[in-house]
Amino acid sequence: MGRRVPRIVRAAATPILIGDPPLLNVLGVHQPYTPRCIVEIETDDGAVGVGETYGDAEYLALATSLADAVVGTPVTALNGLFDLAYEAGGFADDAAPEFDPAGLRGRRTPSKLVRSVVSAFEIASLDALGTVLGLPVHALLGGKVRDRVDYSAYLFYRWAEHPVADAPSDDWGAALDPEGVVAQARRFASEYGFGSFKLKGGVFSPDEEIAAIKALAKEFPDHPLRLDPNGGWTVDTSVHVATELDGTLEYLEDPTPGVEAMAEVRRRTGALLATNMIVTSFEEIPAAFAADAVQVVLSDHHYWGGLHATRELAAHCRTYGVALSMHSNTHLGISLAAMTHVASVVPELRYACDTHRPWQTEDVITTPHVFRDGAVEVPDTPGLGVELDRDALAALHERWRRLDVRGRDDVAAMRVKYPEWTQPPLPRW
Amino acid sequence: MGRRVPRIVRAAATPILIGDPPLLNVLGVHQPYTPRCIVEIETDDGAVGVGETYGDAEYLALATSLADAVVGTPVTALNGLFDLAYEAGGFADDAAPEFDPAGLRGRRTPSKLVRSVVSAFEIASLDALGTVLGLPVHALLGGKVRDRVDYSAYLFYRWAEHPVADAPSDDWGAALDPEGVVAQARRFASEYGFGSFKLKGGVFSPDEEIAAIKALAKEFPDHPLRLDPNGGWTVDTSVHVATELDGTLEYLEDPTPGVEAMAEVRRRTGALLATNMIVTSFEEIPAAFAADAVQVVLSDHHYWGGLHATRELAAHCRTYGVALSMHSNTHLGISLAAMTHVASVVPELRYACDTHRPWQTEDVITTPHVFRDGAVEVPDTPGLGVELDRDALAALHERWRRLDVRGRDDVAAMRVKYPEWTQPPLPRW
Ligand SMILES: [Mg+2]
Ligand SMILES: [Mg+2]
Repeated sequence: MGRRVPRIVRAAATPILIGDPPLLNVLGVHQPYTPRCIVEIETDDGAVGVGETYGDAEYLALATSLADAVVGTPVTALNGLFDLAYEAGGFADDAAPEFDPAGLRGRRTPSKLVRSVVSAFEIASLDALGTVLGLPVHALLGGKVRDRVDYSAYLFYRWAEHPVADAPSDDWGAALDPEGVVAQARRFASEYGFGSFKLKGGVFSPDEEIAAIKALAKEFPDHPLRLDPNGGWTVDTSVHVATELDGTLEYLEDPTPGVEAMAEVRRRTGALLATNMIVTSFEEIPAAFAADAVQVVLSDHHYWGGLHATRELAAHCRTYGVALSMHSNTHLGISLAAMTHVASVVPELRYACDTHRPWQTEDVITTPHVFRDGAVEVPDTPGLGVELDRDALAALHERWRRLDVRGRDDVAAMRVKYPEWTQPPLPRW
Repeated sequence: MGRRVPRIVRAAATPILIGDPPLLNVLGVHQPYTPRCIVEIETDDGAVGVGETYGDAEYLALATSLADAVVGTPVTALNGLFDLAYEAGGFADDAAPEFDPAGLRGRRTPSKLVRSVVSAFEIASLDALGTVLGLPVHALLGGKVRDRVDYSAYLFYRWAEHPVADAPSDDWGAALDPEGVVAQARRFASEYGFGSFKLKGGVFSPDEEIAAIKALAKEFPDHPLRLDPNGGWTVDTSVHVATELDGTLEYLEDPTPGVEAMAEVRRRTGALLATNMIVTSFEEIPAAFAADAVQVVLSDHHYWGGLHATRELAAHCRTYGVALSMHSNTHLGISLAAMTHVASVVPELRYACDTHRPWQTEDVITTPHVFRDGAVEVPDTPGLGVELDRDALAALHERWRRLDVRGRDDVAAMRVKYPEWTQPPLPRW
């Protein structure tokens, strides 16, 4: 029963561009392509593990350095990845000045960059280790407590097509009013079986979005509904929306920017507030929890530093009586697999997790996930239970080489259609 | 690379009595014997894992029920152990009224009882799983970040002998004044190499204990010192001691009972305060951290629910800027092995952990741990790296059958020598 601890003999961080529909939000519109970074880890047993994270230039640079740094280390050395990444990136462990203005991913600091990149290496390591040991990733995290993970449909206002040539296209059509939103929801319900809906708001006036939610409630009286304007509203506007939709929403997500404003909305309305903007790192927990600014944290395992870190976030939420669910944005099946495994081991998960996945028509795994009754089955096969599709990876990497998209910029994408568009101040309404 | 997930085919909870010297504390004196519970888990691969926890009657009853309940479950199903234990014990998951007056282990609730018992099963499962996989327990917890774990000598005021016949005895002699304490420290330093000392206080008047600490400081100017009266002092007395020992103590442990009193001592003195009494469960964290009542949490993996839970505690401490170290009381080598593994995976561990282990002359493992330079090496052998000594276990279990000690009662033990002794009110001075 002895065994050498498997060591990493090869690691690679491959940038890719994946297609994204023209989905609207408070900042603008999704670009035709968005960068992701695919991490591969190979052990001296010949097992390969995969991970996925954000692919913007600064993430890719750190992932490339970290891929060099992990070679030779035990594949079990997950706790050491953070220090290794700080070193590889040349960041100081403390200080951590903002390196980029806050966007839809919450504040951006070196520590969050490190955590986002480490997450892909942690997951690739768990995948490889599970493959070596013949155990699913959830078993390496203390075992699943559920066999299926429920996801929520992610409704977007959107255009039918990107306003540029050679952009990816689909047959969903436009959704720019309550009828369009309801039609989109109908298709999500019938094709994927989703039992709850989230509408990305902050695009039209709050009253138009209230009307869309009311139309959804009328059409789907048994479906929990959520609305997320990404901090697009003032406190007063948030109070207005919360009051209008009292009893209609399961929760209101990031109605207004900042801890103080969120806490005020909570005090004035008693509405259940969720966030993936004001609590995106451990550092942000104390102030937000103390102020009762958020009652549901939407975890993003990339932000938080991986699957062990997501468990730690879940523990904080349990201690402070805050609920946990999951955030999702443009990503592929490796991230969905990781979300599904970690969601399966957190007993407290009470809300269906967000999933942006159906909007992506490409993948880098050989057998993309299937949503049945809005849920993904938790696999018991070794590792993450996904297999890398090397041809697909090569093709998406080739796209990255060909095009010069090196970050996500929803404002710039909006300017293609509306040249006068500038980044809206938050709150906008 | 496929593998069946190993399942538990046998589990046992064996009560034992282990010898304890006549060590004094604020409540009284240690009994000659104290109950512990040894848990064994066997998998269908034939791997055996071991765990250890408190053996008082209510712990043993729950451990016995849980041993039945885990048979047939995957040995990887650690997250499910808590619910299984609540069911096995017939406890409601919520409510959780106190079931016993608070003692030196902090408040005692069903949830803490559940966690203390689960810890032994979690550790036995990790030991068995590690054995099956050929991986050390630390590798199953994300990998060690240090190769040695530093421990601190645990000095006690004590009698030379228990005041009863047929009690265990040793050659340490009495320690009832500063000279006795310094002599004890000298022996701990020379035999084990401990680089720091903790004195269990609350036994004599605060000024006598201040004198003992000052004598230690004089003899060991380079050794960090700690004093722990187990909540024996009023706020004013605590302020007096903190002031007298300002610059001499590494930290002051549980000087006074309760969050408010601890916070007041902190405010009035700025002294670094540690606890294993007011923060002994996740439920107690918010109030204590918000009040700045404690700056160092002394984790006891039994209280907290095992090794994954200890990592979760460590994450809370990191988030709130509170330091972490470890508590220890009467236990054997299985618990020391578990402490060493989990201590090796927590990057933030800045203080040497307490260890009561040298006071126990018995063990249930074939090769008891060795302290070199005050540290225990983190083993890389599969599982916990210890082997159960079945003859020793049988002998200590036979002692449990022969004697009727079914709990720990330091007050009753004190009454043997001082019949008028009653449980002192806390604070006492
Ligand atoms: Mg959001
Ligand atoms: Mg203590």
